[in-house]
Amino acid sequence: MHIELPSWIDDVVPPPSGALREQRMRFVIELAQYSVRHGGGPFAAAIFNIESGECVGRGVNLVHILQCSMLHAEVVAIVEAERVVGAYSLSQRGRFELYSSAEPCAMCLGAIPWSGVQRLVCAARDEDIRAIGFDEGMKPQPWSEALTSRGIDVVVDVLRAEAVEVLVSYKAVGGIMYNG
Amino acid sequence: MHIELPSWIDDVVPPPSGALREQRMRFVIELAQYSVRHGGGPFAAAIFNIESGECVGRGVNLVHILQCSMLHAEVVAIVEAERVVGAYSLSQRGRFELYSSAEPCAMCLGAIPWSGVQRLVCAARDEDIRAIGFDEGMKPQPWSEALTSRGIDVVVDVLRAEAVEVLVSYKAVGGIMYNG
Repeated sequence: MHIELPSWIDDVVPPPSGALREQRMRFVIELAQYSVRHGGGPFAAAIFNIESGECVGRGVNLVHILQCSMLHAEVVAIVEAERVVGAYSLSQRGRFELYSSAEPCAMCLGAIPWSGVQRLVCAARDEDIRAIGFDEGMKPQPWSEALTSRGIDVVVDVLRAEAVEVLVSYKAVGGIMYNG
Repeated sequence: MHIELPSWIDDVVPPPSGALREQRMRFVIELAQYSVRHGGGPFAAAIFNIESGECVGRGVNLVHILQCSMLHAEVVAIVEAERVVGAYSLSQRGRFELYSSAEPCAMCLGAIPWSGVQRLVCAARDEDIRAIGFDEGMKPQPWSEALTSRGIDVVVDVLRAEAVEVLVSYKAVGGIMYNG
């Protein structure tokens, strides 16, 4: 199977190295907006090197486009980042952070520790995602403890309102809910 | 990124359509044995059509071989099965069951409902995997409820001893533990 990012992906320019947290999240939310506009899922993610600020991985939800339930935005970003740095754990190559336009589903929550990132930054909340009809799966509660107990920082509610707008716009255009 | 099964995969022949549960699991354990012998991870999985018995997806742990933490055996099998049936949820094409040589980690547990399978059949237990040094992640407890509450049957301990033998043999040859 071949996983390829959509051809429009390079039209969305990552923030410069010294960017603020909100600028990084704005980039991720823009990816989610582009995804909806091009028939993809309303979720996006990106992985940055914490020291250099370099974006090493980008992801959008490709579940419907590639007919594969595994291709959530976080998974796609992790796959790209690990390919870029050439390691199955990013922790072997430095300190990295994962930005996601929405709090992780059960699968992505389980995937994050395996990726070797040191921090997760989220925009929309779990309940925002469920509100438009997506299933998030059964997570340990509180879900963030699955990460913080392993030394992974969790930051929530960064540009939450903007990310919720993308979710609402997806529902408004009749976007497919990719539940199993 | 290109995900390809190892070239030896077709040397392991899936069981015939009327096969017993143990015959299906023996096939999966044989995939895990081949994987260890060829430098891969000690885990394997397969997806069968419950009605016809046809094997529509095979997976082995490719984390180290393809340097990608997402490629657990269950994920690889789900990716192949969804490609074979042409749907992001197998439930759109019939009733399918996932066999795994070991109980799922947190990521794969979260992934299973998204795949649309109706049943999970496992060999080695969570504690057998942890015993050789792999991390299983933080799962809701009891973990099987994440599946049964969604109508997915869970069967455990099918040829557990044989699957544990593969795990032990992996540790004995100094196999890498793919933790994040």
